[in-house]
Amino acid sequence: MLDAEQPPTSDQIRLYDQVAGQVARLIEQGTLRPGDRIPSVRRMSGQMEVSLSTVTHAYRLLESRGLIEARPKSGYFVRDTAIRVPPPPKATRSNIRPLRVNVSQLSRRLHDVLASPEVIKLGAVVPDVELLPMQRINRLLMQTLQRFPEMGHRYDIPMGHAPLRHEIARRMIDAGAEVAPDELVTTTGASEAVYLALHAALRPGDTVAVESPSYFGILEKLETTGIRVIEVACDPETGVDVDAIERLAEQGKIQGAVVVANFNNPLGCRMPDDAKRRLVDVMSRYQLPLIEDDIFGELHFDAGVRPKALKAFDQEGFVLYCSSFSKTISPGLRVGWCAPGIYQDAFVQAKIAINPAGSIAMQAAAAKYLQTAGFDLHLRRLRRILHERTRKVASAVYEHFPEETRASAPQGGQVLWVELPRGFDSEQLFEEAAQRNISVAPGILFSPGDRFRNCVRLNCAIQSNERVEQSIIELGRLAKNQLTT
Amino acid sequence: MLDAEQPPTSDQIRLYDQVAGQVARLIEQGTLRPGDRIPSVRRMSGQMEVSLSTVTHAYRLLESRGLIEARPKSGYFVRDTAIRVPPPPKATRSNIRPLRVNVSQLSRRLHDVLASPEVIKLGAVVPDVELLPMQRINRLLMQTLQRFPEMGHRYDIPMGHAPLRHEIARRMIDAGAEVAPDELVTTTGASEAVYLALHAALRPGDTVAVESPSYFGILEKLETTGIRVIEVACDPETGVDVDAIERLAEQGKIQGAVVVANFNNPLGCRMPDDAKRRLVDVMSRYQLPLIEDDIFGELHFDAGVRPKALKAFDQEGFVLYCSSFSKTISPGLRVGWCAPGIYQDAFVQAKIAINPAGSIAMQAAAAKYLQTAGFDLHLRRLRRILHERTRKVASAVYEHFPEETRASAPQGGQVLWVELPRGFDSEQLFEEAAQRNISVAPGILFSPGDRFRNCVRLNCAIQSNERVEQSIIELGRLAKNQLTT
Repeated sequence: MLDAEQPPTSDQIRLYDQVAGQVARLIEQGTLRPGDRIPSVRRMSGQMEVSLSTVTHAYRLLESRGLIEARPKSGYFVRDTAIRVPPPPKATRSNIRPLRVNVSQLSRRLHDVLASPEVIKLGAVVPDVELLPMQRINRLLMQTLQRFPEMGHRYDIPMGHAPLRHEIARRMIDAGAEVAPDELVTTTGASEAVYLALHAALRPGDTVAVESPSYFGILEKLETTGIRVIEVACDPETGVDVDAIERLAEQGKIQGAVVVANFNNPLGCRMPDDAKRRLVDVMSRYQLPLIEDDIFGELHFDAGVRPKALKAFDQEGFVLYCSSFSKTISPGLRVGWCAPGIYQDAFVQAKIAINPAGSIAMQAAAAKYLQTAGFDLHLRRLRRILHERTRKVASAVYEHFPEETRASAPQGGQVLWVELPRGFDSEQLFEEAAQRNISVAPGILFSPGDRFRNCVRLNCAIQSNERVEQSIIELGRLAKNQLTT
Repeated sequence: MLDAEQPPTSDQIRLYDQVAGQVARLIEQGTLRPGDRIPSVRRMSGQMEVSLSTVTHAYRLLESRGLIEARPKSGYFVRDTAIRVPPPPKATRSNIRPLRVNVSQLSRRLHDVLASPEVIKLGAVVPDVELLPMQRINRLLMQTLQRFPEMGHRYDIPMGHAPLRHEIARRMIDAGAEVAPDELVTTTGASEAVYLALHAALRPGDTVAVESPSYFGILEKLETTGIRVIEVACDPETGVDVDAIERLAEQGKIQGAVVVANFNNPLGCRMPDDAKRRLVDVMSRYQLPLIEDDIFGELHFDAGVRPKALKAFDQEGFVLYCSSFSKTISPGLRVGWCAPGIYQDAFVQAKIAINPAGSIAMQAAAAKYLQTAGFDLHLRRLRRILHERTRKVASAVYEHFPEETRASAPQGGQVLWVELPRGFDSEQLFEEAAQRNISVAPGILFSPGDRFRNCVRLNCAIQSNERVEQSIIELGRLAKNQLTT
């Protein structure tokens, strides 16, 4: 029971955060719409098996965030102004024809646009530096330099800084994955980790299954390694279609898969645990590598526990788990890692050949940070802000984009996937927006097969200021113009 | 004229450093042997067109270094104990059969041995941290973090930190290369630069010419990219045989070349300017990429000017110039770069796909350091120490290794290439030494064609202490044992 006289314990906070998150999600998904009555405190308490006062606290929290309002004698209602978000996109379909990827030209254009310091970075997946614990990291880095002046000036060993690997292994317990420090290899960001994983486990000419839509950074790596791609159906809530992947594996049509199970970029969806287990089982049964990019795993909007990684279900080592601190601590750290399973030897070999050493100083600072409680406190704040901003961007899209626009209801991460009516050309929007110093990621980047031309991905982890709001209004105007002419 | 009352100017120091270096090299190459009389001050002054006092200062410097001694009324003589180094190895021969590389297994073994903190790192090319300006770099890094706390936490742009590219471009003038900042791309070390250069300019199945022997880090990259190799004859003083490369290009047998023109690793030789010009001309004529690794370019033992890069002769952009600060400032910085010439677009594309961003903080610290005069002062000291240590290791090899051992007479860099009698197995030595916590790089690593089994490469840029001396004695003993059983 919560005692009004006592400050709540962190367990209590976790509990009512969880209830509040649940209700917020129902609102966001449109199950509860503006004006709807929400379940009474008593009913919710029974449903969720928590105390009455936990629900009361949760509802007060939602009230303070402006999501719900109490009406005397009637109970709690979703506020009119609370959340009006576009309806979610439909599930995509598989295309079992292997395709060569060809996204790097357009990706280069996007990078060129993003290189300008003036541009509004709705087109990237960069967390705004104000959301990051940079002062803390800077201090830890300076302490490291002062205490161990030599440390940062040696060549790192190919496996990477051992104290950091230890800390990463500890954190991976939260993702349900038991990985020993010696089964981890640190890398220069998750980008390098995924590239090395592809290099270690696959060959040019191989075909892999990917989610449709799929993060273009992964598609680019597949392009540059000469690996072909089969686009597999993806549900905007539950992620990739495991049955489809099973059929492809059974028919010998794929030699591996690359999956972002937690908060797929761009959809923000999350595979249920059962689907995760089945996917890992399928890949293990056919002895195929499953490359997992879990860079958003810690950024779940649900206030509950961190979602499990695919790696959590990996009994036989076919999962190459990749992640980094670029979205949680700092992109500038350039610290990522891989747990390559049975591909570890090949992975280390590839790392030695390509770029044997990362920065020890940065790894040491990251390790120090992970040892503190600060990281978890920071993550809690970051998740809340990302959730709020994502909702805010969705709400602005609802308000300013053309009618019939749909948008994802991300369960984590930091991006929104926006689907405009057929006929809309996001590449044209990209160019027009670039001229106005606004960047967006056009949908065709997320498919090797020219799908999603009518979609754009928006970064939500940027400053929540007027210029961002203005940019979304401007994007909406440009989109409407395009559709009416 | 030098005035004994006044401290010498830096120009004067440069001048007598140059004279001293010239004499030291004659001694080292064996042109002047222990006991030989060296040219009189007057004669040298005339020969080198410098003042008498410059020569006098130079001779005093050599005296203080223990290389020469003044005998009353007779002049200067090479000291008996000065330098006894093994005779140089013979030139290698070309083998025009394209070979697949297969060095990564053994390289991995070497990395595993080097990973132990206890091991004496004669097997690596790591500058001892005590030789590096680490305190200065740490201070610059801390200043950067304090003044611009956000800077290090952003994603870098794919081209890399602009102020650093500016400083690198300025320094490349010394190498005779006019490269604009926008023609440079920074990388995570030279290793990544060379890998991206291969990726950008060549394809799997292509064949490239390399020096014989050739740095195994380059061979590994060729192995991992599926590029085949033709070993081209190399003179231990003047480097790769340009005529041989011309014939290969003419016959269409190669699609490119990878050359370390300045202080080839492991031989330490330097191509004359004329040979450099001819090589670049050949590659340009046949429109073939020439990947240059100039990581040792600043580490010339000759006190005179920095040797030119191949890039200096590149009119048409076929040279992809790669380098880093790992051997001059700090391996831990992880800052390298490439001037990819006409391959720039492909290079940036490859960088975006593989690892789009390096650390901005480290690049900013490097840029700051390059803006100071400290870097040149540091380099002068570093060159002198590396020269001395290389000679010292050569002298220890002369004393303790089996008779008939030969060794390179490096003109720069930091390694010694030691050739033992035929029948000697350096892989066996490698394993036996590893058990004694001593690492060496076995010769077969430096060839795709099982050449150089009787050779080892020794790192000379390590602490000049008793344990190193003992290690060389131990290596000599192991080698002798092997040859007598």
